[in-house]
Parts: sequence; structure tokens; C-alpha cells
Amino acid sequence: MIGVFDSGVGGLSVVKEIFKHLPQYQIIYFGDTARLPYGTKGADFVKTYSAKIVDWLLNKEVEVVVIACHTSSAWASDFLKEQFKDVPVFDMISPTLKGISYNKIGIIGTPGTIKSNSWKNKLLEMNPNLEVYSKACPLFVPLVEEGWINKKATKEIIREYLKDFKKIEALILACTHYPMLERAIKKELKGVKIINPAESLAKELKLFLNDNSQITSKIAKGHNHQFFFSDEPYNLNKISRLCLGKEIKAKIIDPFK
Amino acid sequence: MIGVFDSGVGGLSVVKEIFKHLPQYQIIYFGDTARLPYGTKGADFVKTYSAKIVDWLLNKEVEVVVIACHTSSAWASDFLKEQFKDVPVFDMISPTLKGISYNKIGIIGTPGTIKSNSWKNKLLEMNPNLEVYSKACPLFVPLVEEGWINKKATKEIIREYLKDFKKIEALILACTHYPMLERAIKKELKGVKIINPAESLAKELKLFLNDNSQITSKIAKGHNHQFFFSDEPYNLNKISRLCLGKEIKAKIIDPFK
Repeated sequence: MIGVFDSGVGGLSVVKEIFKHLPQYQIIYFGDTARLPYGTKGADFVKTYSAKIVDWLLNKEVEVVVIACHTSSAWASDFLKEQFKDVPVFDMISPTLKGISYNKIGIIGTPGTIKSNSWKNKLLEMNPNLEVYSKACPLFVPLVEEGWINKKATKEIIREYLKDFKKIEALILACTHYPMLERAIKKELKGVKIINPAESLAKELKLFLNDNSQITSKIAKGHNHQFFFSDEPYNLNKISRLCLGKEIKAKIIDPFK
Repeated sequence: MIGVFDSGVGGLSVVKEIFKHLPQYQIIYFGDTARLPYGTKGADFVKTYSAKIVDWLLNKEVEVVVIACHTSSAWASDFLKEQFKDVPVFDMISPTLKGISYNKIGIIGTPGTIKSNSWKNKLLEMNPNLEVYSKACPLFVPLVEEGWINKKATKEIIREYLKDFKKIEALILACTHYPMLERAIKKELKGVKIINPAESLAKELKLFLNDNSQITSKIAKGHNHQFFFSDEPYNLNKISRLCLGKEIKAKIIDPFK
């Protein structure tokens, strides 16, 4: 199976892209709703629980791990790749970096993701001449979880957060919830290319699986996907319909209590 | 000491009222930032961690416990009072109920607080003829934590959430963060009495301590307050200045990891 984890329900937007590009494989999803959000937590906390989750997924016989959570990708991906060398671990940052061909780039994410400077540092490592602008937008997640995709208040918040982003060429949506606001963001930032890292992730994963048949052959096929959450998720049905076009059955279990 | 706990930093608005009415006593505060927010978590989760925190506070030699968290007051206060019979436990609901003299009452809080129906049930138990209207306002907490007390988006969100509340006589702010939006809410709901349960709590606690000198005499006096958080709090300085007019020194420790 492909193991996908996130701090909560937002990772379903990543599952959406995996389903689109790799519809044949079974997925096991873990959303750490008991400890969500990761976006305002400290680095040590995010590393500790991300490692616990990967460990738990490996016990569920997962052949590939996807860190769908951007905060965990930012704080913990190097650490997880080092800790779990026997399994391929994919994060939300690396696949997008490879395809970047813009010079003036905006990044929006949770306070944790932005504070980590992961995106900024990796972009500048690739090309020190890039102009990179970052902004934490902590109101976007609760807006999406309310289902307020197109309200007056949503437009107002988008305008307020993105007011200094007028000169960028591309904007990276570095949080799983943000692609659900893509349409409204596009209206505010006309002419700016909006980048959803989940799309790059799914394409990279597809390439990897095409090239590694010894792993691919072991991954269970079919539609018997499993969705675990460490606590009852808030507004799961709403988010699930937004991302996957249907409701999913959640299994509630907190292995770390 | 007086032990005060909350899911995060919002309980500082309760500390503000305790300082105002009982300036002589030492406080020990625990904010469970590692597991915040409680407002969208399940009842069992909130009960389990609330009990762990009370236990931890008792080990710190606390003579009185204040459940500053509204979600915990709603889901766990009966349970905690039953579990910890040897120490007086105060919650955010009971003190306010006693003073209510309105017929048409609105209640706003986190999804957890509203879903629990605690306020509604207790109000109707008191007087079955009351008209009680409830609304979860999950965007208010992140708005306050951004420090967006008076932005255009804030007014828009308040308007959207409270649009059905025009006919009420009083509105109960059943979440620790909401008193920080009191001024903006008042502008939207002209003529409606805004009730801050932290004020009733502090007054009730004062009466109790006046009447129970055997407890009062044991409580440490002075300004050597201690503020513990189970993870680095997000925007603590902003919230602390909003509530207490100054910054506080946070000690980071997660006893439940």
C-alpha cells in the first residue's frame, strides 16, 4: 500500500492527486487529528509525531510513504528520510522544486512551514538569484474547514494576506488546504501561476513507481483504501466531498495516546 | 496556588479577570498547546487530557482548580468534579448561569462547546421558557491569534456568524478568545448585553475564597506566577499583551508525551 499521512484532513487534497495519477494502488491514510494542527507547533513536536506515524504505517505493511503534511515536510522530511532508510519517503517540497522555472516566487503556508524557511532555503540553494517572498496565512485552514470557499470574508482575508504579492510570477500553495481556495486566490492574483505541490508529488511518485518494479509489484492494488484518524475529524464530510467528490469512512484510533 | 488550565493561550483572558478580582494569589497556569485546539476534538479526548492536567496541577500543590477552557468546561467539568473530589474545581459555565436574567440568549463558542449543548441544556434546566440560540464560530480563535481584532475581514466574519442573532437580549462569549473581540461584536450587535463568563468565574471564586478560610490560608500569595505550556505557544506575546497588558515568561514542558 501507499502510506499517506497528514496532521488532519487536509492531506485528502494530496490523496486526490494520487488517485488521479495512480488510480490502481491502495492507499492507507493517517490523519493525526488528535494533535492537529501541526502548523503552529514546534519543530521537535512535529518530528517526534511524524516519526511515530511513519513507524505505525510501516507496521501496516506500507511500501512507500508520502508526507502529505507540509509542516511535517518542512520540519521533518530530512529527519524521516534519515531515520527510515529502508522505505522510500516522499515529501511535498522536493518534487515541486525540480520543475520550478520562475524567478519571482511567492510561498504561502502555515506559520510552521514559513518559519522553517525550508522552501525559501531550498529554492535559493537551487538558484541564489531567485526572488522569494513568504507569508504565513493561518486563517486559510479554518476558512476551508468551515467550507467558506467563496464568501465575502474569504475574499477579504485573501486580499489582506496576499496584498504584498502583486509582483510575483508564481505562487506555491504550501499547505494541503490551500488548493481548495485556488479559484479565489486566482481571482485576486491575476496572471500569477498557482502551483499545487500535490500535483508534482503525484507525478514524481508515478515516475518512481514506473522505474522501480521490485517495489511496485509489492504494492496492493484495488480500491480498498483505509482512512485512519487519531481523533474524530471536524467537518470530514465537507472536506472529503471538496477533495474526493464523495464521503469516506473514517476509522478512529490514536496509537500514541 | 490557584491552578488554571486551558487548551492553549486563550485562558489568559480568564487569568486577566482573576488578577483583577483576586490580585493577591499566586497562579499556576497550564496551556495544553501540544494538543490544542480542544474545540474541534472529541469528548473522550478532552476528558482524558483534562484529567491528566488536573492531576499534574495537584502535584504542583494547587488548592483550587479553574477549568478556564470552555470546551473542557462543557465536556469534562462534571467528570472532573467527580474524579477530583478533594479539591474545589471551578468551570466556566456554572458561575455565569447563576446570574442570568435574560429571556432570549445567544451562545457562541467552539464547535465542541456548541455541539456538547452544555450551555443550552443547563440554561433550559434552569428555566424551560428561555429562548436559547447557539452558533459555533471556529474562525474567531485564529482571528484573535493573528491579532486581527479590528480588520475589515474580522467585521465581515462577525457579521456572517452573528447574522441570525439580531433578536437576542444577551450573548454569552463561551470561548476564552472571544472577549478579545468584544468591542467588534458589540458594534455588530447593538443593544445586546455581552456576557464574559470569565468575569462571573472570578467573582464566584472570590466569594468562595472569602467563605473558606481553611483553603484560602493555604494558597500562596504574591506575584510569582508560573505559566506552563506543553508546546511553544503561537503568538503568545501578542495574546499576552492583549490579555494582561504585558508579556509573560513561558515554561515549555509536555508531561503527557
